[in-house]
Amino acid sequence: MSAGRLPCAILGAGGYIGQQFARLLADHPAFAPPRLIGRDRGRRRTLEDAWVLAEEPPADLARRPIEPATPARLAAQGIRVVFSALPSGTAGPIETELARRGIAVFSNAADHRLDPGVPLLVPEVNADHLALAGPPRAGRGLLVTNPNCSTTGLVLALAPIVPALRPRAVHVTTFQALSGAGYPGVPSLAIVDNVVPYIPEEETKIAQESVRLLGRRRGRTVVDAPFPVLASCARVATRDGHLEAVTVEAGRRASLDELERAWAGFDPLAGRPLPTAPHPPVERHPGVDRPQPLRDRWAGRPDRARGMAAVVGRVRWDPPYLRFFVLTHNAVRGGAGGSVLNAELAAERGRLGSGRE
Amino acid sequence: MSAGRLPCAILGAGGYIGQQFARLLADHPAFAPPRLIGRDRGRRRTLEDAWVLAEEPPADLARRPIEPATPARLAAQGIRVVFSALPSGTAGPIETELARRGIAVFSNAADHRLDPGVPLLVPEVNADHLALAGPPRAGRGLLVTNPNCSTTGLVLALAPIVPALRPRAVHVTTFQALSGAGYPGVPSLAIVDNVVPYIPEEETKIAQESVRLLGRRRGRTVVDAPFPVLASCARVATRDGHLEAVTVEAGRRASLDELERAWAGFDPLAGRPLPTAPHPPVERHPGVDRPQPLRDRWAGRPDRARGMAAVVGRVRWDPPYLRFFVLTHNAVRGGAGGSVLNAELAAERGRLGSGRE
Amino acid sequence: MSAGRLPCAILGAGGYIGQQFARLLADHPAFAPPRLIGRDRGRRRTLEDAWVLAEEPPADLARRPIEPATPARLAAQGIRVVFSALPSGTAGPIETELARRGIAVFSNAADHRLDPGVPLLVPEVNADHLALAGPPRAGRGLLVTNPNCSTTGLVLALAPIVPALRPRAVHVTTFQALSGAGYPGVPSLAIVDNVVPYIPEEETKIAQESVRLLGRRRGRTVVDAPFPVLASCARVATRDGHLEAVTVEAGRRASLDELERAWAGFDPLAGRPLPTAPHPPVERHPGVDRPQPLRDRWAGRPDRARGMAAVVGRVRWDPPYLRFFVLTHNAVRGGAGGSVLNAELAAERGRLGSGRE
Amino acid sequence: MSAGRLPCAILGAGGYIGQQFARLLADHPAFAPPRLIGRDRGRRRTLEDAWVLAEEPPADLARRPIEPATPARLAAQGIRVVFSALPSGTAGPIETELARRGIAVFSNAADHRLDPGVPLLVPEVNADHLALAGPPRAGRGLLVTNPNCSTTGLVLALAPIVPALRPRAVHVTTFQALSGAGYPGVPSLAIVDNVVPYIPEEETKIAQESVRLLGRRRGRTVVDAPFPVLASCARVATRDGHLEAVTVEAGRRASLDELERAWAGFDPLAGRPLPTAPHPPVERHPGVDRPQPLRDRWAGRPDRARGMAAVVGRVRWDPPYLRFFVLTHNAVRGGAGGSVLNAELAAERGRLGSGRE
Repeated sequence: MSAGRLPCAILGAGGYIGQQFARLLADHPAFAPPRLIGRDRGRRRTLEDAWVLAEEPPADLARRPIEPATPARLAAQGIRVVFSALPSGTAGPIETELARRGIAVFSNAADHRLDPGVPLLVPEVNADHLALAGPPRAGRGLLVTNPNCSTTGLVLALAPIVPALRPRAVHVTTFQALSGAGYPGVPSLAIVDNVVPYIPEEETKIAQESVRLLGRRRGRTVVDAPFPVLASCARVATRDGHLEAVTVEAGRRASLDELERAWAGFDPLAGRPLPTAPHPPVERHPGVDRPQPLRDRWAGRPDRARGMAAVVGRVRWDPPYLRFFVLTHNAVRGGAGGSVLNAELAAERGRLGSGRE
Repeated sequence: MSAGRLPCAILGAGGYIGQQFARLLADHPAFAPPRLIGRDRGRRRTLEDAWVLAEEPPADLARRPIEPATPARLAAQGIRVVFSALPSGTAGPIETELARRGIAVFSNAADHRLDPGVPLLVPEVNADHLALAGPPRAGRGLLVTNPNCSTTGLVLALAPIVPALRPRAVHVTTFQALSGAGYPGVPSLAIVDNVVPYIPEEETKIAQESVRLLGRRRGRTVVDAPFPVLASCARVATRDGHLEAVTVEAGRRASLDELERAWAGFDPLAGRPLPTAPHPPVERHPGVDRPQPLRDRWAGRPDRARGMAAVVGRVRWDPPYLRFFVLTHNAVRGGAGGSVLNAELAAERGRLGSGRE
Repeated sequence: MSAGRLPCAILGAGGYIGQQFARLLADHPAFAPPRLIGRDRGRRRTLEDAWVLAEEPPADLARRPIEPATPARLAAQGIRVVFSALPSGTAGPIETELARRGIAVFSNAADHRLDPGVPLLVPEVNADHLALAGPPRAGRGLLVTNPNCSTTGLVLALAPIVPALRPRAVHVTTFQALSGAGYPGVPSLAIVDNVVPYIPEEETKIAQESVRLLGRRRGRTVVDAPFPVLASCARVATRDGHLEAVTVEAGRRASLDELERAWAGFDPLAGRPLPTAPHPPVERHPGVDRPQPLRDRWAGRPDRARGMAAVVGRVRWDPPYLRFFVLTHNAVRGGAGGSVLNAELAAERGRLGSGRE
Repeated sequence: MSAGRLPCAILGAGGYIGQQFARLLADHPAFAPPRLIGRDRGRRRTLEDAWVLAEEPPADLARRPIEPATPARLAAQGIRVVFSALPSGTAGPIETELARRGIAVFSNAADHRLDPGVPLLVPEVNADHLALAGPPRAGRGLLVTNPNCSTTGLVLALAPIVPALRPRAVHVTTFQALSGAGYPGVPSLAIVDNVVPYIPEEETKIAQESVRLLGRRRGRTVVDAPFPVLASCARVATRDGHLEAVTVEAGRRASLDELERAWAGFDPLAGRPLPTAPHPPVERHPGVDRPQPLRDRWAGRPDRARGMAAVVGRVRWDPPYLRFFVLTHNAVRGGAGGSVLNAELAAERGRLGSGRE
């Protein structure tokens, strides 16, 4: 383990998002190979035993055990950073407790996303919201959340063009992948030869989180973006990759060229040393029938950023209505990868102290 | 064959929609068992040989040959009604020629849908548009079209509530089934574990046909409905049943109760002797996660109207935005069944003369 | 409720097989509409609330509650026949207790299938095994089981040809549908774009149950058929319908014609008043690429017997190896329908007493 | 283009197997970046335009045109090696003509597989069959074929254990992936929620090719292996990866341990400089429910050999019957990769002359 990498742990390492964290952190330049925390099942269980992703488990972590651990234990063992893939509901109090013990928590769970004082972050969109957490103080932890998996792709696609369009409203219909429900998640009998036009709480999360992410920070509060985001969410039988059909009701008549340039020029993290950041973060696909989950979910360069880019396509501009599709890998960009990038941002901003194992 | 049933034929009987026509017409009270017209493939081919639907072929027609026939031939043989499942592009001139020869043509093809003088009909929505065809005259044929498969469900769901909402715009995102592309249609490698966010010309068809169907007839022309319909169309891996997420931008603040009553009370064909008409034509499903293609595509009572009802669910009203999902069986209500119902309407209005075989 | 129909109940009415029982018993000539028994979930739950099949719930039962009930309660309420869709493991002691209380139990569970004194039945194959239960006695119940869902189709296809072939061994590879695992059953992430070549205990069940079903009864014991049945079982992403590739290593060189006649002439229940019995029970499909789950799972006439026939196709005879495919609806013929047919057989043989409600 | 790499071309570069060739040859140490040959479609078409694989097109070839070319043209341009992904039927005469002009042809097509004098090769299994082509002579071409996609996996799994088992017969049932039929291939309506138990000519190919591959070369002829291989072939809805259930009727009672050691020790190309050869070529998976197409199709190390290993699992030995499952990536190991490996073998054996561009 190289000196300087921060000791970290994954909570909920046995689940779909937890395993994506393991993939992304198996060989990370800033974080040491993670401890894998999960429920006690009464028998020793390794990452490999629990593995549910189609991709192979990372060789270096495959035989590590998934073990229970309390916040106190993790703090005592010197864990400095925790990536939380706990289910919403369970996550809340545990994450609070970890932060209270001085640990920096990067969470995919919904529990704290709308809390005042907890940054809800997509680094390319609202990196300055990190300041909501207040100034760093010795021994004080940190709690940072990434948004709901559908929200991430939406705000990445919107952020570049919101200034030009000044939306009056945004309408989004989602085609969400199976992995968005975790494992075991959606029963096969519910979805083979079917679409389910309902995902509990999803439409509300998109509505609330989008306007917060696109909102303006004033000191330690956020003024939400001044337009509603109305979602209609459905589950389809794709494995990974949330596709979204977006219609923006524009308040300003930008030219299509202006919009295309806004997307093309969007790379706010360019030149910044965040290894998981994709460049560009929003890929504009020229294909007549793209983006597609199967073909575009792993978009993102460099290699470490595979699955981190949003792909925008089929742009149609009939003022005042702008329509397009956007796709992101829900479990990478919209899940574990989002929190890893948030942690990289925090590290770059000096919020994680120096690494020492 | 019972006296009084009109001699009829199906064009394109070897294809997916043609076979749905065969199912619906195998034992129809107003139309005699259809002749099955299709391309010459150099060998005798029965309906059974060509069968591609998951449902069984109708026993009485299964062993009938699919044979080529010219319009002249069909007219000479006394065919009075033709149901056209020809592909758009091919259909146009053949249908014109059939009508010229005095035959009543009910077409699922796009070619003539927007022609002046050709009714584009959904009987529950705009039965009076039948008058666009002009007064019946001896020996003159008739040409009536049903809309695109996605459009039918949309206008059925909208028709009851348009008066109450006076829409400023309608946004619709579709989850379209495989059978919408016919057979062989979508390659399996294109769609297993995937969504394809593009269906050629579909968005334009929905935009143009919807406003015509919801438009007002003035004599022999139609004034389109005064709001745009903006569609985003995608193909998903369901076999049958187009699901649509609809957002209406309302120009009037109806109460939700008023909207629900508008749907509940909608049955303009009640008491009329159209055997394929579903009662009610729009079913309001109370389920939290409905309508679903797998479970709701065969909606419609009585039995002859199975697959003919539109199912509306997940109604959310955040004025001025009304959101809901609607589902229809694309190949029945949105295809063959639409034209059969159009033919029943024309028969009831005395446009097909009296049956005699 | 017509006089003379026997009061009955379904155990496990909330599950996939339980609901198939409900479909088949909703309007049965010999059994009264069933009581629906299931776990207490702390709130009232109707059949409709629990419904997971793609087919619609039977109108007459949809709003009936699914309620808990003990064996004692059921006996006290005059229930005469119980159809058990309980999970194996849970089923055993409950079924024993019901029989002890004088109730006739027809079970889909595995627990008692190999018990001495418990008939394991497929009526077309081994109706005489009913005698394993001993002579009827006043107040004594009955316990009859149907085999595992894959076994049923296999023995139906084999029974007619075993005499002609005198097998040395039978090899079978299964393509099993999702519903075979019940609901929620197989996670979608486990099976979309995948095949899982393992189903716990399935290969053993097929091996043991097949030779018992094809065995010869001697008094109240069965001598197993004298050849091994070796299975390789896999789950595929079809909703319903187990397909099986069968190879018989023959000990006798029958002619292909002899085999075809054996299948064609097989209808041991012909003329017997069992309403759910399909005629013929084994359909020989001539298609080059049949049977297929999607197209053939509902085979079986008359209407009440839909889903009850086995469909055999692609017969290839390279002595000593006979190869063919067989398909059956796993949840109907291979599950609930199997036990309903067993109950009809028992009723015909006077094992259920006279109906009185 | 590095000196020393042989000028080559891919025939049928627009199809599924052709594109797999492109992936594998984009950066190959022995072959120069390939020319891409395909039908004239009346407009310029690049590899990217034609791309149908889920994986990304190789960056270096993506914008190369797919162009028509005659054998004469290819010879004149100095092409030394041709990889043929032409459809069977079309391939035959073209491949003959290319070889006649001195080009070494490595073909995935069936046309010449059983020709005397044409090696049908799986290098780990029968590398010495290369000698069937006769001694190299200046100016004389070469024609080498890889077997049918299902056959490759089967013989890889069998080769190590045939000596120990001395089979009397081999029974195999296949679960074949969609890509085995090329693109567009299987219509989605034919396979979603379905299995098709028929693939034209497949069972015959497996029977004939397996015994030839496992046969013994005597000079320039092959004596087929002395046992029948009986196949039952079915298509399932997986994208890539043919799974096969194999039963060997053994003529000798090896111990299970002996069989496991035979597989574990099998690596006949170890130490040989064939870059696409996987080590080991047969991976023995310990998982209770493996191999699975989704999880195991990309097996094979080193990186260049991904998708080249066969994975064997679920071994059950009930003498005289050995049962197991085997999986191979049909389009890589069972298609393009098979021919690339054959070409590497030929190069190593000095059959391709020295590279010069």
